[in-house]
Amino acid sequence: METIRVVVWGENVHEQENEIVRSIYPRGMHTVIAEGLETNPGFTVGTATLQEPEHGLSENRLAETDVLIWWGHKAHGEVADEIVDRVQKRVLEGMGLIALHSAHYSKIFKRLMGTTCSLTWREAGEKERVWVCNPGHPIAAGIDRYFEVEQSEMYGEPFAIPPAEEQVFISWYEGGEVFRSGCCWRRGAGKIFYFGPGHETYPIYYDKMVQRVIANAVRWAKPEGLWIDSCPQIPAHEAPEKIEVKGPRLHKDTDEGYR
Amino acid sequence: METIRVVVWGENVHEQENEIVRSIYPRGMHTVIAEGLETNPGFTVGTATLQEPEHGLSENRLAETDVLIWWGHKAHGEVADEIVDRVQKRVLEGMGLIALHSAHYSKIFKRLMGTTCSLTWREAGEKERVWVCNPGHPIAAGIDRYFEVEQSEMYGEPFAIPPAEEQVFISWYEGGEVFRSGCCWRRGAGKIFYFGPGHETYPIYYDKMVQRVIANAVRWAKPEGLWIDSCPQIPAHEAPEKIEVKGPRLHKDTDEGYR
Amino acid sequence: METIRVVVWGENVHEQENEIVRSIYPRGMHTVIAEGLETNPGFTVGTATLQEPEHGLSENRLAETDVLIWWGHKAHGEVADEIVDRVQKRVLEGMGLIALHSAHYSKIFKRLMGTTCSLTWREAGEKERVWVCNPGHPIAAGIDRYFEVEQSEMYGEPFAIPPAEEQVFISWYEGGEVFRSGCCWRRGAGKIFYFGPGHETYPIYYDKMVQRVIANAVRWAKPEGLWIDSCPQIPAHEAPEKIEVKGPRLHKDTDEGYR
Amino acid sequence: METIRVVVWGENVHEQENEIVRSIYPRGMHTVIAEGLETNPGFTVGTATLQEPEHGLSENRLAETDVLIWWGHKAHGEVADEIVDRVQKRVLEGMGLIALHSAHYSKIFKRLMGTTCSLTWREAGEKERVWVCNPGHPIAAGIDRYFEVEQSEMYGEPFAIPPAEEQVFISWYEGGEVFRSGCCWRRGAGKIFYFGPGHETYPIYYDKMVQRVIANAVRWAKPEGLWIDSCPQIPAHEAPEKIEVKGPRLHKDTDEGYR
Repeated sequence: METIRVVVWGENVHEQENEIVRSIYPRGMHTVIAEGLETNPGFTVGTATLQEPEHGLSENRLAETDVLIWWGHKAHGEVADEIVDRVQKRVLEGMGLIALHSAHYSKIFKRLMGTTCSLTWREAGEKERVWVCNPGHPIAAGIDRYFEVEQSEMYGEPFAIPPAEEQVFISWYEGGEVFRSGCCWRRGAGKIFYFGPGHETYPIYYDKMVQRVIANAVRWAKPEGLWIDSCPQIPAHEAPEKIEVKGPRLHKDTDEGYR
Repeated sequence: METIRVVVWGENVHEQENEIVRSIYPRGMHTVIAEGLETNPGFTVGTATLQEPEHGLSENRLAETDVLIWWGHKAHGEVADEIVDRVQKRVLEGMGLIALHSAHYSKIFKRLMGTTCSLTWREAGEKERVWVCNPGHPIAAGIDRYFEVEQSEMYGEPFAIPPAEEQVFISWYEGGEVFRSGCCWRRGAGKIFYFGPGHETYPIYYDKMVQRVIANAVRWAKPEGLWIDSCPQIPAHEAPEKIEVKGPRLHKDTDEGYR
Repeated sequence: METIRVVVWGENVHEQENEIVRSIYPRGMHTVIAEGLETNPGFTVGTATLQEPEHGLSENRLAETDVLIWWGHKAHGEVADEIVDRVQKRVLEGMGLIALHSAHYSKIFKRLMGTTCSLTWREAGEKERVWVCNPGHPIAAGIDRYFEVEQSEMYGEPFAIPPAEEQVFISWYEGGEVFRSGCCWRRGAGKIFYFGPGHETYPIYYDKMVQRVIANAVRWAKPEGLWIDSCPQIPAHEAPEKIEVKGPRLHKDTDEGYR
Repeated sequence: METIRVVVWGENVHEQENEIVRSIYPRGMHTVIAEGLETNPGFTVGTATLQEPEHGLSENRLAETDVLIWWGHKAHGEVADEIVDRVQKRVLEGMGLIALHSAHYSKIFKRLMGTTCSLTWREAGEKERVWVCNPGHPIAAGIDRYFEVEQSEMYGEPFAIPPAEEQVFISWYEGGEVFRSGCCWRRGAGKIFYFGPGHETYPIYYDKMVQRVIANAVRWAKPEGLWIDSCPQIPAHEAPEKIEVKGPRLHKDTDEGYR
């Protein structure tokens, strides 16, 4: 069986600082998310956190990661830009990325979307009902028409994202809002999935349906190809058709382009 | 008649430093692009350059701009990040953006796309034939099946962009390559058009067909709405449906969210 | 001021056969929809119904129509295929199409989408809250964060459509469902908008917000270009580059292709 | 290893009627396409033709097909509408469809696209160079920057399709045209790939690169989920939230909707 190498990245701040969050996730949210994935045959799962050197995301680590799961909230600003650059590069090369809940505002998600990724929100422990928009989509496999998260933070429209290429889930909230809670995009050779549920003051990542969605998303997001792009010059003598250079030039045949 | 306020932003470096470019565009490329637009009824056209304070793009100036045209090449790295942030914000609010030729590698275009925006290239003065993919598209208005640029820099596939939402043009090159040379996207309330032709060592922006495309793109990209987004909290007592707060909370009703 | 020529097409069956519907729309639903539009400056509005010759949609009538609004429910099967072909052709040429409510199952909407366009539904007079997903979108102009339809038929996910190119509205229902109730697509040179509200046993088309959305959609969907496509042969002597015919052929230079 | 069940559908008319085509494909084009696929581990490959009962596409056969490949040209009009309905239904359920060359004008491809699918064309045996737009895409696996088809029919822009969701290939022609020759869409639970090369008067399906693309497309298009859609009524007593029926109704709880 094919192996999928998953890394669950956790900000790991509220678990240390906040009593409520610590009581729910004493070993960190990333640990619970990772344990939920480990039960899936063929998954090799590790974790990484903000506090580790290079946030646990060295070049080597990323090179050996098929799908990266990202949870952050309070400390988005503390993630080093160099690591964001590195993760973006690896996604464009082919690594899958799953952005969870408050990662809508993570540097890496905003970087890949190109938009503000803002939304409306309310922390009232209300019920969220997650509806399947395309029952044939692999990320909805094994999910009935909907599933419910008994206590959830409301995330509502407008959600400032580029149009989703595939709409997998939309959520209904007790308080009256709706939200595009499961969205797919492709960027370069990489696949990106955003999934809404996961506020840290509720035990959402222990939920079997939530775990199933994340596992499905890992399978969907695994690399299907690799692209290391480079913006190469193709000088005239290497053109597929025979041509002569005409007119003035800024560049020699061996130049790299401006960046 | 409705007025469209256009600003043509030019890097204005090669025109100063390079004999060839200066001889073709003695008053700067931005001036020629602007003059091409001024002949259109209803357009109010100004220019801005890298060398001006705030690169000529103050908050006030942008607030009064409907469509911004961007040409840069050698000095992408000298554009201040603060100005890039500002332009991105204004595009998401509704301002149109037209990225020309080497602006594929500008900070603002890469920011809005979320990808590397790399391509292949060759500076050989070869012929480029620009094909219309959708003759009913407003950016192709008044263009026959194709038009030709007699001397052009080749820009070729792979072009590392998100899928174009509308493909208006694809180019054929004498040397054997192809390129998605006219692409549309929407981000937030703003429209973005990328247009390939425009290398500075050839007199491309004097070409009537090229001028027509840019004018069409201005009309297409003009704002159709405005969105100032903010990520507001909607506390329980303001929810559309009556709800009681349940469970623990991190935030008070008046908090802003983490960023 | 530019004039937009609108035709409101109504099936006009339940208004004749059903007491409830007749009491709400004694002169037909199409009449009420048309009267709601007539208050907009620059709109020229007419109606057409199933019962008229050619369903009121002759070649000439369509050629002079900028935006066609379609309401049908009980008698989708009675719409002649020839008229569906004609409307599809005209949309691809550039005419806008607005499909209302039960028109999700009209022949013309299914034809243009290529999918089943099925959904889930419930006729319980429950509240529908229509949320704006992109406040900068022209179809949402003048709409606050949401508006409510006090009594509505529930239309719910999964909605079997191709991915919406722009998601303008998503609806929340009292009974617990959600629905992509405002969706945009482009096909050929034409724009298509689907809008959910409009069950005939409730007075929905008298609602000012609903009327505003339809009027906004008319402005958005008006033609921006024209494309009469034809699949022409371009024989070798008309190729942009000089070529000689090589190898065997099925076709003479003057043939039309197979269809 | 997972098995993918492929059926290659061939019109099989020109092979019978035309000397040139028969000399190149004496056992039919479908046979050659199928033999090219059979060399791939895990593929189970069969064929079907226009002349067989139900065109070789019975309900049972389709139910056991993962990916259907379609080649037709002269006899599109002879394909029974009932079979087109059946294939469309099966694609929306999850079966992959690969439309080859002149299948751009097949009933099934036009049905799924909703557009005319017209293009420009020329039968001059000219060279076609197929460029990779996304080297990380699985359909481009094992293909270098481009490959060439020495003698090809020119298919050129404008190609009247909905925007491709993923652009895998664009072709360059000796005579000066370009064409979106590799396009992906998703409809329902099914994936659709259009691939340009394949005119019957040249031995294109013997080409190793062409065979590789088709095999890659089969792997990409294999079902990832299943959706049998049905447009069910969800009566008030089955709503997720408790509601009472309010207002008048057209339907009883057990009714099916109008179609």
